[in-house]
Amino acid sequence: MFVVDMPGLKPGDIKVQVEEENVLLISGERKREEEKEGAKYIRMERRVGKLMRKFVLPENANRDGITAVCKDGVLTVTVEKLPPPEPKKPKTIEVEIC
Amino acid sequence: MFVVDMPGLKPGDIKVQVEEENVLLISGERKREEEKEGAKYIRMERRVGKLMRKFVLPENANRDGITAVCKDGVLTVTVEKLPPPEPKKPKTIEVEIC
Repeated sequence: MFVVDMPGLKPGDIKVQVEEENVLLISGERKREEEKEGAKYIRMERRVGKLMRKFVLPENANRDGITAVCKDGVLTVTVEKLPPPEPKKPKTIEVEIC
Repeated sequence: MFVVDMPGLKPGDIKVQVEEENVLLISGERKREEEKEGAKYIRMERRVGKLMRKFVLPENANRDGITAVCKDGVLTVTVEKLPPPEPKKPKTIEVEIC
């Protein structure tokens, strides 16, 4: 699970992608709000602009089982785990007589 | 208008108050989420804890006309302005004959 603060972003402003097999890329952009007619900004401290983070997924991540939910300005990306590979049975190689 | 990022906070976690006639106090607390059974945190960068900011309101602020709305992790506090005071009419003082 990846939990990222994204206050003021709408689902359409957020992008969640998997690239290069195992890199989870979370990006978004907060645009400056449209200035209201006659409004005067006294102070601006909230960051606007693009944000991007990359995370390397573990080997057992299921890249087809990823969900992303945004609530109250917090994005939660959940990556399912692949079931552990079945233990490999001992394999017998026949010995040929030469 | 005061616009404050408050990702992950619910309306009940946020407090908006006016103190000393003209000081707007915005505070909140983000608690650490309850640890899930068996969950292991690999990295934590999101700030948790209390936050508080005070703003001095201008003289023409209507302290009875303040609204606070939280959406997508962004709190917007709107303070209405009082109507400008009516221009004072000239006042005539009768002159008594003494």
